[in-house]
Amino acid sequence: MPALANKVYFNYGGQGPLPTPSLEAIQASWRTIQELGPFTGSVWPYVEGTVSSLRRRLARWCGVPGERLAFTENVTSGCVLPLWGLPWQAGDELLIGDAEHPGVVAACRELAQRQNLELASLPVAEARSSSEAAQAAVLESLERSLTPRTRLVVLSHLLWNTGQLMPIAAVAARLAQHPNQPWLLVDGAQSLGSVPVAEAAAAADIYACTGHKWCCGPEGLGVVALSERLLEQARPTLIGWRTLADESADTGAFHRDGRRFEVATSCTPLFAGLSSSLTLLEAEGTDQERLALIRQHSARLWEGLGTIASVHPLLAEPPPAGLVSFTVEGQDPATLVQRLGERGIWLRNLPDPACLRACTHITTTPSDLEAMLKALQELVAA
Amino acid sequence: MPALANKVYFNYGGQGPLPTPSLEAIQASWRTIQELGPFTGSVWPYVEGTVSSLRRRLARWCGVPGERLAFTENVTSGCVLPLWGLPWQAGDELLIGDAEHPGVVAACRELAQRQNLELASLPVAEARSSSEAAQAAVLESLERSLTPRTRLVVLSHLLWNTGQLMPIAAVAARLAQHPNQPWLLVDGAQSLGSVPVAEAAAAADIYACTGHKWCCGPEGLGVVALSERLLEQARPTLIGWRTLADESADTGAFHRDGRRFEVATSCTPLFAGLSSSLTLLEAEGTDQERLALIRQHSARLWEGLGTIASVHPLLAEPPPAGLVSFTVEGQDPATLVQRLGERGIWLRNLPDPACLRACTHITTTPSDLEAMLKALQELVAA
Repeated sequence: MPALANKVYFNYGGQGPLPTPSLEAIQASWRTIQELGPFTGSVWPYVEGTVSSLRRRLARWCGVPGERLAFTENVTSGCVLPLWGLPWQAGDELLIGDAEHPGVVAACRELAQRQNLELASLPVAEARSSSEAAQAAVLESLERSLTPRTRLVVLSHLLWNTGQLMPIAAVAARLAQHPNQPWLLVDGAQSLGSVPVAEAAAAADIYACTGHKWCCGPEGLGVVALSERLLEQARPTLIGWRTLADESADTGAFHRDGRRFEVATSCTPLFAGLSSSLTLLEAEGTDQERLALIRQHSARLWEGLGTIASVHPLLAEPPPAGLVSFTVEGQDPATLVQRLGERGIWLRNLPDPACLRACTHITTTPSDLEAMLKALQELVAA
Repeated sequence: MPALANKVYFNYGGQGPLPTPSLEAIQASWRTIQELGPFTGSVWPYVEGTVSSLRRRLARWCGVPGERLAFTENVTSGCVLPLWGLPWQAGDELLIGDAEHPGVVAACRELAQRQNLELASLPVAEARSSSEAAQAAVLESLERSLTPRTRLVVLSHLLWNTGQLMPIAAVAARLAQHPNQPWLLVDGAQSLGSVPVAEAAAAADIYACTGHKWCCGPEGLGVVALSERLLEQARPTLIGWRTLADESADTGAFHRDGRRFEVATSCTPLFAGLSSSLTLLEAEGTDQERLALIRQHSARLWEGLGTIASVHPLLAEPPPAGLVSFTVEGQDPATLVQRLGERGIWLRNLPDPACLRACTHITTTPSDLEAMLKALQELVAA
């Protein structure tokens, strides 16, 4: 991974490093497409095979049949696209976690404005105690926040800011008891590649992921897992030749499976790149084994941070995955990010809650952790 | 261009070959991103510079300020995305050319169904006489088809099936006289890189293009030029961090320029690849000079086809650009495509009107043309 060769990297939650074999797979895919095509009868079996192979692999990762996956350009498209075609009624309520990404929140706000829906906030950002207690707190918060008009709940699997894990399957089970059976949209931006997602992806109606963060695939390719009822109830909104069951027929009938949310030409070599990155991850162990390693690193960082005076991790216990967020008394987070960057150590700051976020992956090394803790200690003391 | 080395290629309108320097530019971009980032303070100036540089170049090609361009994954997204946020009134009429791509037609049909709009057809497919006469026929057809409720006209710049050129600027001028001042959506899938587009792109409200056909860029990157009034009137629908004026602010305010229709993470290396391909095209001459060369090749093909008994070009005169469509008496188009493919000669068939389509670009050679004509002659005689 050339990206890791010349820096101390803690921004896996922003974008993961691309392994050299994956870049080579991308290049090889382009060469194959040019050799066989680019637009010939000879190239289609290759293109279809590349896409299908990734679909099958992601179906295994997500624990849903491949027919329920749709490929997207990024995780946001996966979250937002299916929403616009749902049968909303004026007055329906969207219950949105208070630690969601601003893009998804803005999309819901626009949807609400155009369809005369109501917005409500689901408090989860303050659930920072032990994983078990936090999950109970989230379910209590859900209980208090549901109303008879709740029609959609929006929640990330792994909160991008606090790093807390949300009890998605339990949330889904609770929603199934609600008279409206509200749809459950899960932003999986931080989860695919870092925590096992199969249970949550199978429980959600919309479970949107990207390949370019924890999966260490190329930027520009994501996937969304959709429930059977979602596929029945949601009409496609962004429609192109890939949406259509038969491009040459005049019926305009849509695919009934996940492809109804695919649009038009995508970059096939990216599919080859993501396949390569997923294969490399699989070679490092099961998703449980990889999470254990990620947590080992994040726990070491969390503990080390706790020993620096004026540094306060957001979570009360070692993180459930690889996101380690913390505040530093009397320091501007953006300046601190810049100073660490000058030393070749990269993390990021977040606006709400205002904090710094360092991510550990299976590729994180003991010397990465030492370097981060040492530099922080020096900068905080300075 | 490796794609052209081992075949006789006439599918530029499906996908253009990727020049080796552009594939190298893509690889180099990925290496730079990994070296500087992928997610660090050091990489952002490079990413921003790569995107801005392509934006400036495409602004020159499209004859509009860069602020009025939005990058998209493909041409369909460029056509469809801005439509969903326009202030429609029930009963508004969408007047759609009868030779448009099925994807765009299906998208308009869905929009009409959800917003209670009416669909009407603008007959242009039969305009197959000389360019000048065809353009007059299209304007007459428009005159007959406009109603007081017309609110949008959808027309390709270069029809993907007949290969006829539409008088976009004249259509726009006529629409400006209409009391509703209907919006004009132009599908530029076949035009950018084959014909000069600046006049048409500046006249349309939505002028959507792709980089992977006549521009010979990588698949997965398109651009749409938007009018000032469109940017004022249309709200974004697919919303993500790139849509937002300030990702970290809670206001959720959108960019006022073209970026309001951009969504989230795209594949930056594709921007470097398309820049490379456009640079290579620029080195071959002005857009007028390149069109002259394309037309020289398409005229030669058109003339040759006319000498084969039972082969009938769709257009009455040599084509205005590089699309040469024709029918063959007593032959199934799909079978003919397959037989030519077996000889390493690639064109495609189209469903409506049922025909074969061969595209000539500046890279087309006399021997390509000879090979196609010779093979057709043999297969038709057989």
